[in-house]
This record gives sequence, C-alpha cells and structure tokens, in this order.
Amino acid sequence: MSNHPIGVVVRNIARPPRAAIESLAQFGVATVHEAMGRTGLCKPYLRPIYPGAQLCGPAVTVLLQPGDNWMLHVAAEQLQDGDVVVAACTTDCDDGFFGELLATSFRARGARGLVIDGGVRDVRELTGMAFPAFSRAINARGTVKATLGSVNVPVVCAGAVVHPGDVVIADDDGVVVVPAAAAERTAAAAQARTDSEVEKRARLAAGELGLDMYKMRESLAQAGLTYID
Amino acid sequence: MSNHPIGVVVRNIARPPRAAIESLAQFGVATVHEAMGRTGLCKPYLRPIYPGAQLCGPAVTVLLQPGDNWMLHVAAEQLQDGDVVVAACTTDCDDGFFGELLATSFRARGARGLVIDGGVRDVRELTGMAFPAFSRAINARGTVKATLGSVNVPVVCAGAVVHPGDVVIADDDGVVVVPAAAAERTAAAAQARTDSEVEKRARLAAGELGLDMYKMRESLAQAGLTYID
Amino acid sequence: MSNHPIGVVVRNIARPPRAAIESLAQFGVATVHEAMGRTGLCKPYLRPIYPGAQLCGPAVTVLLQPGDNWMLHVAAEQLQDGDVVVAACTTDCDDGFFGELLATSFRARGARGLVIDGGVRDVRELTGMAFPAFSRAINARGTVKATLGSVNVPVVCAGAVVHPGDVVIADDDGVVVVPAAAAERTAAAAQARTDSEVEKRARLAAGELGLDMYKMRESLAQAGLTYID
Amino acid sequence: MSNHPIGVVVRNIARPPRAAIESLAQFGVATVHEAMGRTGLCKPYLRPIYPGAQLCGPAVTVLLQPGDNWMLHVAAEQLQDGDVVVAACTTDCDDGFFGELLATSFRARGARGLVIDGGVRDVRELTGMAFPAFSRAINARGTVKATLGSVNVPVVCAGAVVHPGDVVIADDDGVVVVPAAAAERTAAAAQARTDSEVEKRARLAAGELGLDMYKMRESLAQAGLTYID
Amino acid sequence: MSNHPIGVVVRNIARPPRAAIESLAQFGVATVHEAMGRTGLCKPYLRPIYPGAQLCGPAVTVLLQPGDNWMLHVAAEQLQDGDVVVAACTTDCDDGFFGELLATSFRARGARGLVIDGGVRDVRELTGMAFPAFSRAINARGTVKATLGSVNVPVVCAGAVVHPGDVVIADDDGVVVVPAAAAERTAAAAQARTDSEVEKRARLAAGELGLDMYKMRESLAQAGLTYID
Amino acid sequence: MSNHPIGVVVRNIARPPRAAIESLAQFGVATVHEAMGRTGLCKPYLRPIYPGAQLCGPAVTVLLQPGDNWMLHVAAEQLQDGDVVVAACTTDCDDGFFGELLATSFRARGARGLVIDGGVRDVRELTGMAFPAFSRAINARGTVKATLGSVNVPVVCAGAVVHPGDVVIADDDGVVVVPAAAAERTAAAAQARTDSEVEKRARLAAGELGLDMYKMRESLAQAGLTYID
Repeated sequence: MSNHPIGVVVRNIARPPRAAIESLAQFGVATVHEAMGRTGLCKPYLRPIYPGAQLCGPAVTVLLQPGDNWMLHVAAEQLQDGDVVVAACTTDCDDGFFGELLATSFRARGARGLVIDGGVRDVRELTGMAFPAFSRAINARGTVKATLGSVNVPVVCAGAVVHPGDVVIADDDGVVVVPAAAAERTAAAAQARTDSEVEKRARLAAGELGLDMYKMRESLAQAGLTYID
Repeated sequence: MSNHPIGVVVRNIARPPRAAIESLAQFGVATVHEAMGRTGLCKPYLRPIYPGAQLCGPAVTVLLQPGDNWMLHVAAEQLQDGDVVVAACTTDCDDGFFGELLATSFRARGARGLVIDGGVRDVRELTGMAFPAFSRAINARGTVKATLGSVNVPVVCAGAVVHPGDVVIADDDGVVVVPAAAAERTAAAAQARTDSEVEKRARLAAGELGLDMYKMRESLAQAGLTYID
Repeated sequence: MSNHPIGVVVRNIARPPRAAIESLAQFGVATVHEAMGRTGLCKPYLRPIYPGAQLCGPAVTVLLQPGDNWMLHVAAEQLQDGDVVVAACTTDCDDGFFGELLATSFRARGARGLVIDGGVRDVRELTGMAFPAFSRAINARGTVKATLGSVNVPVVCAGAVVHPGDVVIADDDGVVVVPAAAAERTAAAAQARTDSEVEKRARLAAGELGLDMYKMRESLAQAGLTYID
Repeated sequence: MSNHPIGVVVRNIARPPRAAIESLAQFGVATVHEAMGRTGLCKPYLRPIYPGAQLCGPAVTVLLQPGDNWMLHVAAEQLQDGDVVVAACTTDCDDGFFGELLATSFRARGARGLVIDGGVRDVRELTGMAFPAFSRAINARGTVKATLGSVNVPVVCAGAVVHPGDVVIADDDGVVVVPAAAAERTAAAAQARTDSEVEKRARLAAGELGLDMYKMRESLAQAGLTYID
Repeated sequence: MSNHPIGVVVRNIARPPRAAIESLAQFGVATVHEAMGRTGLCKPYLRPIYPGAQLCGPAVTVLLQPGDNWMLHVAAEQLQDGDVVVAACTTDCDDGFFGELLATSFRARGARGLVIDGGVRDVRELTGMAFPAFSRAINARGTVKATLGSVNVPVVCAGAVVHPGDVVIADDDGVVVVPAAAAERTAAAAQARTDSEVEKRARLAAGELGLDMYKMRESLAQAGLTYID
Repeated sequence: MSNHPIGVVVRNIARPPRAAIESLAQFGVATVHEAMGRTGLCKPYLRPIYPGAQLCGPAVTVLLQPGDNWMLHVAAEQLQDGDVVVAACTTDCDDGFFGELLATSFRARGARGLVIDGGVRDVRELTGMAFPAFSRAINARGTVKATLGSVNVPVVCAGAVVHPGDVVIADDDGVVVVPAAAAERTAAAAQARTDSEVEKRARLAAGELGLDMYKMRESLAQAGLTYID
C-alpha cells in the first residue's frame, strides 16, 4: 500500500487483548481464513523458511524501500513481547533484508517471528534458532541503510492490508491477517468451525460421501450434472 | 484486500470535486506518483490494452471472485458520469471478466474506463470503441455469475489500496491511485513538479549535466566514487 | 501432450469441409470459445506478434524438441492451402524456432499462419509480410536441427489438445481450437450467440442495466447481496 | 484440455490390471519417462507437498472450475481401491481446492493420493496422514461449490493428457502418466532400463568415464569438439 | 555480473572503429546472433518500449543498485556521440530508473539509446522523442540517488556479459552484444549470411522445400523418421 | 554469457591453492557475499535440492545447449579432486540435465557437487548419496546428446560470471562465486566480518538496539524520520 506516509514511526499502537491472540493461536491459517468469510489471506508466494514454522501475534508493521533494511532496525525499538514483524516493500524486491543478527535482536526485544514480502538470509541459522519467518524469497543478497520507509503505518503485504496491531497467524498453509477488532469473534467462529468438523471427519472417515453428508445431489442435478455409464 | 466485507454494495459514495479530478487529469502517472511522495502505484503488471489508453476519474470499486464477473453487472448500476471502475479479485485470476458488452453498458452509464486486476477480452472491439482498459491479462476465457463479491468497498488492486471515490489515473506508464482527500494537494504538487521540469529539461537539452544541475558531485565524492582513466 | 509418438509424420490427415472453416472464420476467439461451452482455449500467454493478427484454418500439428526446429521443415511438405501450423514443444522453450525464411516457405506451400508454444524471430519482417503468428515469446535465439519430433500427431499446445485437422482460430484475444467434428455446430452456435448479442448491445447502449436485462436481481438477493446507503 | 464435455460424470472406467500397476510402482518417475521414449511428463511445477511423497495408481480424472471444488466431492463416489485422483482446472488457478477433510474422504474410499493442477491446503495434516499430494501451489484460500466441471473425462493436467484409467506415477522428481494400454510394456522397458543401469553405475563408480563407456569420443570429434591446453 | 568493482567510473574506454559499427548497424539482431555462432544475446525479456525501436552503438555500461538511478546521471558525462547506454542492476529490479529528462540529457550528450535490465517510464514521451529503449519493464515507480554503483565496468545485462565499448545492436527481436574485437568479422559474417539468404528466400518462395534445399531427407531417415499414411 | 566460444574444452585450468579454498569453506554464502563488497551472487532461483546441502570448491565450468547434457559427460574427464561443476545453458531450460548416474561418475572423478542453471532429477537418490546440487528446477525430463557446448570457458550462471577455477560456495542461502585471485583476501575479509559479529550478536541478544549499536539515530533524524505517539 503505497499511499501511506513515508518517514514516519508510530510509537503507540493498540494491540488486541492477549486472550484474543491466544485464542486465535490455536487455529490454523486455513481455518481462520474460512472463519473470516474467506478473507484476510496473504498471497501464497509467502512461504515458511522451514517446514513447521508457525506464529501468531499482533503486527508491528514496516514499510521498506527496495534493497534497504534500515526500517527493520527502527522497528526493533517498537517491539513488545509477543509481537510479529510484518514487513512490506514499496516495490517488489527479493533482496535478503533479514538475517540472523536481526533475528537475535528481534527475539531479544520480544518478537515471535517475521512475515516479509521480501527475501531472508541465514536460513540455516534462523532454522537453528527456531525463529519462524515467512518470506517471498531466500536470498543472500545484502541491503543498505539509506532511504526512509515507515514503521506502524498500514501496509499491503503480499496483497493483504495489515494495520498495526492486527493479528497475524502463519503456518505451513500461508499467512492470514485478522483485524484487531475482529480477533475475538474470529476466534469464536474458528472454534465453531473446528467443532463442526469433528463429526464430519468421523463420518467421512467411515466412508460416507460428502455428496450425501452435504446434501449436494439435488443441486448438482439441478445444475445439470449427467452420469454416463 | 481480502479482509473486507463480501456480499455488500455501498450505494452512496463520496466523489472528489470535479475540479480536482480535472486538475489531476492533466498529469501523467509518473508525475502524480512523484507528487505523492513516490506512493500510490499499482504494480506494473497492469498494462493498457492498447497504446495510448488513458483515463482519470473517481473509483467505483468492485471485488470479484475468481472466474466470476457477476459483480461487474452489479457495479454498472452504481456508476455516475466520469467514474472509473476498479476491479480487484479475491485471488489471482487471469480470466476474461470484461468485454465489449460490459464496456457498452459501462459507457452508457457514464464510465470513463476500467482498471482490473484480471483479464479482459474483445480487445479489438474495445480498441475500436476507444474504451480505455488496464488489465493484468488479455484472455478470451469466459466467466460465470454465481458467487457474490462486493461493490464500493475498499479493495487491493494490483498491490494498491483503492477506496471508493479515490481518483485513479492511468496511462502508458501504469496506474496510480490518489486518495480523495489528497486530490487537490496532489494536483498542486504535480503542477509544481511539472513547472520545475521545464527549466531542467531545457538545461539538459542544452547539454548541461545532471551532475552539475543537481549538484551531485560532492555527495558522490563523499560516498567514495572513484574515477579511473 | 508428451505421450504421443516421437519420430512420426502422418501424411494424410482429414480436414473439415472448407465451408465449415469459412463459417468459423467470421467469428472472434471469445465468441467461438463461448459457443463451445467455454472450452477449447489455449492459455493466454500465446500472443499475436503484431496487433490485429488473425487466422483460421485446419491444423497441421508439429511436436518440437527444445532448441530444435527440424520438424518445422518436415511440416512444410505436409501443408495444403489454408492450413495453420500448430507447433508444440516437448518441454517449455522460448527459443526462436521460426522466422522469415520459414514463413516464406510456409506461405508458398499454402499456410495461413502459425501458432507456436515457443519463440518467434524476425518479427519486423513477419509483420511486413502480414504473416500472422501467435507465440509464447519473441526471441532472436536460433535453433538446431538434430533431434526428431513428430508431425500430425495430437499435441498439447499451450494447454489445449490439438488434433491434426482441428480448426484453429486466433486473434487479439488469443487462440481457440475447435475439434474437426464440431466445426459446423460450433459455427452455428457462434452465429446464434452473435445474433443474440445484437439486441443486447442495443439495449445496454441505451442505458438498460444488465441487472434487469439478464434478470439478475432475484438471484443476487437470494445469494444475500446487501445494499448499504 | 478444455475441449471436453462439461457437466459429465463417467461412472464405469476401465483400469489396467493390478499386476501392471504394481509393476510400474517399482520404478521412479524419471525411469518411467525414459521408458516411454521421453514422453508422458507433467510440467515440473507440480511438486510433492512433502519430501518423499510418492504414489502409483489408475487415474480418476476431475475437471475443476476456478475457485470451485465441487467436482472433487463428486469424484469421491467414483473411487475404487488404489485409485489416484488427477484434477485439472479449466483455467490456471492456485486456490486451495483440497484439504484434510477431502483427503479423509478420499482415503476412506480407497484413493492412494492426489495430483492437482491447483492448490492444496492443510499440508501439515496431510503430511501427518502421509497422504501423498502433488500440486502447483500450497494455498489456504478456500473454494466454493457452484459450477459444474466433469469427472472421468480426458483432461490436460500440467501439460499432460490424462485419460481415466491411465496409470499415474509420482515421486520427488515429478509426475508421469502412462496410457493404460502401454502400462505393461512400459513396466518391461523400465525394468530393462533399470537392469542396464546396474552395470553402468558400477563402472562409473569405479571411475570409468561416460565418454568411454558410451563411446562418445568419435561423435564429439566429428561434431568438431576441440581440446585446448 | 556482481563480481566487479562497485564505486568506480572508468573514463577512457576504447570504442571500435566507426566503420565497424556502421557495418553492424545494417543487420538485424537475429542475423548478428547467428553470425556470432549463436551467441551474444540478452534474454528475451528485454523488449522495445515501442514497436520498431532500434539502435546500434558502443556500450557505455552502468551498474545500478536496486531502486537507485544515481549512476545514470554519472554515466551521462561519459557519453560520446553514438554511444548506447547499457544498464545492469546488482539485483532484479523493475523500478522506473529512466524517463524523459534523462533521455533528454543522454541525447544531448550523444547517446543513441538505452538498454536496461530494469524499468523505464515516460514511455509516451520517449516514443514521441523516438528515443529507442529496451527494458525489462515499464514502470512509473521512481528511484532515489543514494548508493554507488559503477560506470564502464563489465556488467551482466539480462544474462549477457557486456564490456564497455562492446557493440550493442537492438531491434524488435531483442538485444545482442558483439565484443569490440569481433565487430568487424561479425559484420562480415552477417553480410555473408544475408547474401546467402537471398537465393534461399527466392527458392523457398517458389515452393521448394527446405527438406530438399538443405538436403535433410537423408539425415532425417537416418535418425529414424517414419512416414505414415 | 553467450559470447564465448562453442565447441571448446580447455584442459588445463588454474585452481586456487587448496588452503584458500579451505579458508573460504568455513563461511556461509551471505558472509562471503558481504566480504566481497556485496557482489558475486547467483540469482536466488538456484536452490539446494535438499535442505542443508553445501559445497565449496574451484569451478569446472560447462556451457550446455537446451535439452542436451552431452557436455556434462565431457566435463567429467576434466575433474580433479575437490572440484565443483558449474553448468550454464545457452538459453533458459529447466530440463533434467543431471541425475544419479552422472553424480556417481562425477563423485568418482573427485567432484564435490554441482551448481546448474537448469534442472536436476533423481533427487531422492542424490539426497541419499548426499551429493550437493543447486539447481533452477527439479525435473524428470530427459535430455539428448547431440549439440556441442563447451567446458572450462567463462560462463554466466544464473546471472553471475564464473571463470574456470573461481571458487564457488553454496549453501541454503544460495550460491556465490569468488574470483580465483580474490580467494585469499575474501577469506580474510569473511573472517574479519565473522569476528566482528560475535560481539554484535551478544549485544543484540542482550537487548541492545541496532539503532544504538550502529549509531543510526542521527542519520535517521537527518533523513527526516518522524516519531508520532
């Protein structure tokens, strides 16, 4: 989202209640996305840097300039325990904005992990630290510290709008963003969806067809589906 | 921007004053982008369907579902004279959501053109109609009318946030979005930039170097630039 | 379609009646695609090498090997007046398999044009000759003549199955393939569709909404569409 | 392959003898591809959702519409023990058509795994179930059930034609399709190739050069290869 | 080519004799590429910003940093009449490094045109000026002037090595680079190739087959090509 | 780098002293890249075929033709103990040029691993052998042996120039190329960088901010960074 101010750091951002975040942390990305009415996903090119990486927490947002990671250093000061750094860039860039030293700093300041619409390096070390990071690329290419971006302004990260304090959940399926105000009701909806799937799973595992369980046969016939032997 | 309501049409949207739009219409996309502090651009994969296509007007936004152009028909009713339709999709999709019949309808309802993060077809007819369209693909593939999206909610179109009523300017260089509230000051800044370029252009055309005109030699030397014979 | 024989040239292929081809030649790619029940399209990465290129004719198919245009020379002998050469490759390859000399030869042997899931060169000369070509790339990179492919076997070209003698139609919107046996009924369906659009176009041009003309309001309401002021 | 019927389910498809399938299951994808004369491969963008995933079985084919997984539910009813579901889409689409509940159902109905020219989600759960899936994307994005496709018609999946009952083999190297009628002779050719490699492997491991073992020196010299010291 | 010095401007570069450049300027990119033994091409993603753009001249090379066009201003001072600016970037970047003001300056200093492995903007104005530019993108996105690159060091531009003073030829088919030392013999080889095509073109236009003219039938038969009726 | 001779094998290449290679082998790709002044990287699309793959050694370079792996067999004869094969292609090609038999041969002749701007197959077997390979694709697609390339000429591999004997280092972060003449000083610079990071890491882990440690606050303020509460 390029139409937001450049050169600004917003210091005091609101974060959802810890309980709401912990509630959301129980669910996977696909479940939360469905619980939001199939909204909130980042594009699927964001991938975990190691299988099994996962995170959930309120977003500290960063707007980077291409080939420049200065604002990640600025963001470190704004971190609180449990935060997730969400970094967008003013233009598509795969450079390695983030590595082991920044991860060390972020972790020391309380960060749970990183979502970045850019590249990451030192993946072996990050994996060893179990520092969850979701990125568009793995790239050893280094960056400079020369041009201002912003911290804690709304950003578009991999196609999703992220406001500071929104809850970000990421796992092997991708990254989803829950607006802070929707955190509690999304957690409730995710729980309801999860509950409803228990019985469905058992019935499907027993061999019942979705065609019958979801009562699809009539609508399929109405749509004109034809069976041929 | 997936975290916005699905199944909603907002009827009454605010549009900037006509004068502000006309002011902006005098400038190219690159100039407006610079006048906004290098923000507001859609990603460069949006391209005009014919060379020289251009448009400027307030956005009527549409959120499409993949392979489904139902909401474009819904949007037609919301158009006013001079509007630009800006269509995003809940997921990346190159299908041909838009063609000559919809263009005929949109034009009859006052639309100036289309920006779509999806595909367009009937490009020969659209070119013949001089209907400016900017799209991510040209694709004859047809769509269905089965699943709800929304009209006049904020959308992310090719990486840029677009609110209904934002001013959208597009030409051969791409597409830029000016928030409604910033329309007038952006036009003023664009004018200032354009004015300042007149003298620069003349000096450069006369052979003066940017190195001298922009007084770059000292900062280059400080940065360590070395000349070798 | 890789599971077809390599090293084979089929000499006698059936072509649809000339009348069926001429009927299809009146319609655009989007119309024909819809007339076939929204099937038959090549992927939209195939693009004309110049605006306005178009062709219609029965396919002489070619299966190329990467970086090798030997089979295009073999195919020239199999051409009859009005044919379209449809060239697929056993693997994705953007090399410039085709240029002005081959176009000269193909035209002399009766070919109407070329569809190739590969690269083309000499585009200036081809444009000057008005030789319609649709390709995945423009690329000066040359090829060798060392490895066998096939001529007139079924191929998968840009995602569409093409059998020898199928009718291929291409224009600015892309490329569509009509099975030989379906040529006549597809032309009839395209004509019906075109006829039906005349009245629709007039009504839309007069300002009538698709919402009303297509009677969408009830199904939109049933789907839950909500209007907000 | 878009030029196949939409809205059709073929119930009784022929499957190759179990013995032929078991014979093929012993070989890797690269070996089978070579045994077929270097044909039959899907494009390499299909990747296993976890390292080491593999499958072999007759195809139950599915033609999906973009953003719509209705036909996967329809396909479940057509599964027999040992089948592999091969899902194509009428247009390129990375949405998450398939997840853990469908995998539970497919497995209960006998499916060995899935090959899909689309996205998959719940990859952690699928990995935990050891359900082999090969897909073009991992994507939490959900789908609807609104538009008909087909089951058990020929499809083009990632560039390869797949007929119902063809044998599909997939492993870390990709996905290959063996026409049902060619299953036995392909298994025999794969065995011959595997046998012939035993001696070659031993000789190469002992330091013999392929240049000598394959007697390449003369043809290299004839082609003009020049050695420079 | 990243392994070259950063922060350096080489002032005195050797350029080939004007006659050699004029000789090369008569030939198209495809012909020159073949005359060099099928070498020297940039990747085909470099495209002219308008159809028919063409250029030929010795390269003044520029190594840019992502999102930063400082070095283009530095390069202007090094231009001599007839030069072509060839700009590479230390990392993939589609930003709009170049526009109308720089073109005005470059032209005033003698430049014939630009080849850039990056983005260009103001394409309407550049087209109006008939300033030939070949780029990987058209993008209104602006750049900064903050980080040093180099001028007149060897670079890798779109996959091709370019040394300062190499002759660069570009047209609708792409971009080719001729090492300065090879300019004369390449022009001679291109002339020979062009001469030899005159007779071939006439024979092909008269309907003679390449199969006969190039005497391919025997080698095709030896390779095992089979004709089926 | 296409402008190098085709059809040539250079037999006697200079390799850096073993000690220099062993020094470099202690460092990761990102560190070496920084130690070279942020140069020397291959593009990040080259990825290890299994997590944790790594290699370091002098390059034996190969220039392949598309779909043709003949030159890899030629290269085997030129290997010495500790070498790394670096294979480029004259055009973009994802075919599976390399598999288990070639790996067996290369290992027997002393090779440490492979970097290839192309595809690799038999990844399960290569992983089992712990044969480190870095490639642009995994692809079962086989190749032919019909067209000459070269061995031990300079090549452009994934955007980086590689001369025979250059030291190639690869790990999970990518691939970096160190000119032979720079091997020793690069190792020294990498050691200095690594040493300097020890203290930084400790300070960051203790919660000190990079803003303070790197003394960035003043330059940020000068650039105009604004803090908002």
